[in-house]
Amino acid sequence: MVKLHRLISIVLRLAAAGAAAAAAIIMVISHETATFFGIEMEAKYSYTPSFVFFVVAFAVASAYSLLVLLVRPGSTVSRLVLLTDVIVGMLLTGAVAATGAISDVGKNGNAHAGWLPICAQVQAYCGHVAGALISGFVSLVVYFLIIMYSLHAVAEPMCSCH
Amino acid sequence: MVKLHRLISIVLRLAAAGAAAAAAIIMVISHETATFFGIEMEAKYSYTPSFVFFVVAFAVASAYSLLVLLVRPGSTVSRLVLLTDVIVGMLLTGAVAATGAISDVGKNGNAHAGWLPICAQVQAYCGHVAGALISGFVSLVVYFLIIMYSLHAVAEPMCSCH
Repeated sequence: MVKLHRLISIVLRLAAAGAAAAAAIIMVISHETATFFGIEMEAKYSYTPSFVFFVVAFAVASAYSLLVLLVRPGSTVSRLVLLTDVIVGMLLTGAVAATGAISDVGKNGNAHAGWLPICAQVQAYCGHVAGALISGFVSLVVYFLIIMYSLHAVAEPMCSCH
Repeated sequence: MVKLHRLISIVLRLAAAGAAAAAAIIMVISHETATFFGIEMEAKYSYTPSFVFFVVAFAVASAYSLLVLLVRPGSTVSRLVLLTDVIVGMLLTGAVAATGAISDVGKNGNAHAGWLPICAQVQAYCGHVAGALISGFVSLVVYFLIIMYSLHAVAEPMCSCH
């Protein structure tokens, strides 16, 4: 039973790390230059603060997920992991939400604010950002499962007094 | 000791509910009409999907915080509360992040995407959104404390076998 717990935990952590790394990498390599009415338009993630936050958050989450695999189950540090899992989960939610909000303006614009959509001009760039968002969302869902599973696992072994 | 736990929990829930309600209300009443180069510009929260999400998320969180006060400590439902607390915490993080990202574009624009800042034209509106963001952030911090406190409280009483 303990071995099964450990196996599920390892699989979830590896899945979260992989999806988070993919999200960060897809966002970093998004880059496109387009000419629009004679004006050259360059699009890359580092021009948007939310996208930079996205890359940092998912890179940190990916590294963290791998590091946690080294923590011995039942140790004092493992009790702290649930706390940091919740923090990382919230960090990823913030990154996905901020990137999603800006992507929506990029795709649909905001007529009331006078912000025009740009995705028709830089389609490949927008495709990359959408890919990063999907990968990030998958990682976030796996993190949510990890947190729910950890909550369950923390509550259980502590009751085995008899 | 149990009474102190309960008192801290009630105070935190009321603080979270109050700040969340304030955030939702400040955002809803944000409205301004300005004339810019002869063009009338109307700014209100419902024109931006992220701001609508913000209002819904904080209204739900405020109602939820008050409802949780009715849950009897130690009951089966109270075990479920930690799970829903984490979900609400993530929801609020997403709302603050998405609103923050759009507010940043409103304040500073994004020259690379051709999106101009609008806060110079609708200062009162931007002030309201900033106020809602601050209030929302306070509510989020209190929620974080609630989650950390609940994690602690869930782990403790379950070990009192001897």
